[in-house]
Amino acid sequence: MPASVTVTEVVLRDGLQDEPVTVATDGKLRILDGLIGAGLRSIELGAFVRPDRVPQMADTGQLFEAARGRAGVTCSGLVMNRAGAERAIAAGAPEVRLVVSASEGHSRANAGRGVEEALAELERAAAVLSAAPRPPVLSAGIATAFVCPYDGPTPPDRVVAIAARLAAAGAGRISLADTLGAATPVQVRAGIMALRQVLPEVRIGLHLHDTYGMALACAWEALRLGVDWFDASLGGIGGCPFAPGAAGNVATEDLLGLLHGTGVATGVDAGRLLGLIPLLSGLTGHSVTSRQWLARSVAPSRDTIGSLPS
Amino acid sequence: MPASVTVTEVVLRDGLQDEPVTVATDGKLRILDGLIGAGLRSIELGAFVRPDRVPQMADTGQLFEAARGRAGVTCSGLVMNRAGAERAIAAGAPEVRLVVSASEGHSRANAGRGVEEALAELERAAAVLSAAPRPPVLSAGIATAFVCPYDGPTPPDRVVAIAARLAAAGAGRISLADTLGAATPVQVRAGIMALRQVLPEVRIGLHLHDTYGMALACAWEALRLGVDWFDASLGGIGGCPFAPGAAGNVATEDLLGLLHGTGVATGVDAGRLLGLIPLLSGLTGHSVTSRQWLARSVAPSRDTIGSLPS
Repeated sequence: MPASVTVTEVVLRDGLQDEPVTVATDGKLRILDGLIGAGLRSIELGAFVRPDRVPQMADTGQLFEAARGRAGVTCSGLVMNRAGAERAIAAGAPEVRLVVSASEGHSRANAGRGVEEALAELERAAAVLSAAPRPPVLSAGIATAFVCPYDGPTPPDRVVAIAARLAAAGAGRISLADTLGAATPVQVRAGIMALRQVLPEVRIGLHLHDTYGMALACAWEALRLGVDWFDASLGGIGGCPFAPGAAGNVATEDLLGLLHGTGVATGVDAGRLLGLIPLLSGLTGHSVTSRQWLARSVAPSRDTIGSLPS
Repeated sequence: MPASVTVTEVVLRDGLQDEPVTVATDGKLRILDGLIGAGLRSIELGAFVRPDRVPQMADTGQLFEAARGRAGVTCSGLVMNRAGAERAIAAGAPEVRLVVSASEGHSRANAGRGVEEALAELERAAAVLSAAPRPPVLSAGIATAFVCPYDGPTPPDRVVAIAARLAAAGAGRISLADTLGAATPVQVRAGIMALRQVLPEVRIGLHLHDTYGMALACAWEALRLGVDWFDASLGGIGGCPFAPGAAGNVATEDLLGLLHGTGVATGVDAGRLLGLIPLLSGLTGHSVTSRQWLARSVAPSRDTIGSLPS
């Protein structure tokens, strides 16, 4: 087990991208400052995708400009094509996450193109990014890495082949995403082991949703395998509009419950993080249903049992 | 990992014991028949506790009489003292679960006596049961085996000492209960390993609540250690009135999602089990929030992804 892990907070991207309300830039910056104040040091700020398709992410460039003044935190932005790469360069994004689906069905629904075409476009985007005067750090995310809502289980070999292309394009870290929230610990183990065998130099991450309540079991299996990078979203909000039936991301506070409860350090103050939920709910117009938040509401004695040390 | 596990369905006892509405005997028998129809073969029917204190369990004797006509299923009843033991014998209960808390605080709140006194009373109850003309099979449950809402973390040594007394009193199976739903996989592992080392002949079970969303991670850790007996409650309802802040039991359907999804057989038809939830909701007057149930409501494509094979 790793002694400490990096938690990448994705509430401002994956969390907000499918909200019916588009949160204003000022609201996002208040969340950003709250996250930094709680100790998060890796934050996905937004996505350089078509503003007409995903208006919730239209201000990603502005967020990066504003974030430049915030010290000690690394902000990343999602990119799926060359146009996004050019916007990321213009915004001065210090880190870019290249995202592709492992399954044909999800790739066509989400990106409007098949996997091979999407991957070739990502390689061109990576070339653009690497040729920038100040090239951003490249990481990658592979959506539907375990299960696809259209195609069923994803063969690990397929994920490995895609990961190899992304690593060759410059991604030093690759996050495997359970976009549907339907992966089991056995599938997570198989994916991680396959990837590690072929690409031992790549840092592997895990991006979990929690549709069937198995996210923390999957995270635990990954921890047992030494995985030290996890995405999570404040409040457990979020999800992909092209993953029918998927629930939100694993909640950052729930993941911290597992990590801190099992002695894994994150540098994040879980109590301060929970304190941001009223702000988030105010901005989105709805409450959240993360387990730590619900338990906090009903359990005045919670603090005495040490389930949420920071 | 075990190839198959026993799931003990506790909705009729732990599930209903803290409901504000007392479900009528006829309703409980409809649930019982539904559970048997779904393939459950181990069912906790009720508790032989004071009817004036827990009116929801007042009809436990009648349930055992009615259940005698149901073939192929083993029904158990909870006992905490000699009076309960005598009622269990009178009802012809084929299996009795002796229950004691591992922590002083919970024992005093729940049983009205300290651990040593409660354990001595259980030993007398076990003697009464063993002396019956047709003695029931004895199992045991240790509440607050990992964390107590009043006393904090429970030392594994304490659990082992109590388990040794229960085993000596005749319990061949002992279930460790996370009454508060606050245990971590590390605590679960420590408890199981400690118990196995001292009492290798005892079959170890796990009784989980899901306050912090960690129940399936704990179940997964236990499976990895070879544990092959789990309690769970249809719909994830239930809880102890003397465990402030605790959420319901781990939902049987959520546990089945983990078990079946990782290749562990249970003999239970998860689809048929889910089909009982409208009946349960009708009887209790409220909806349930298990992840499989919520996912089913929003995900028409769920069946195509194989997350719930039977």
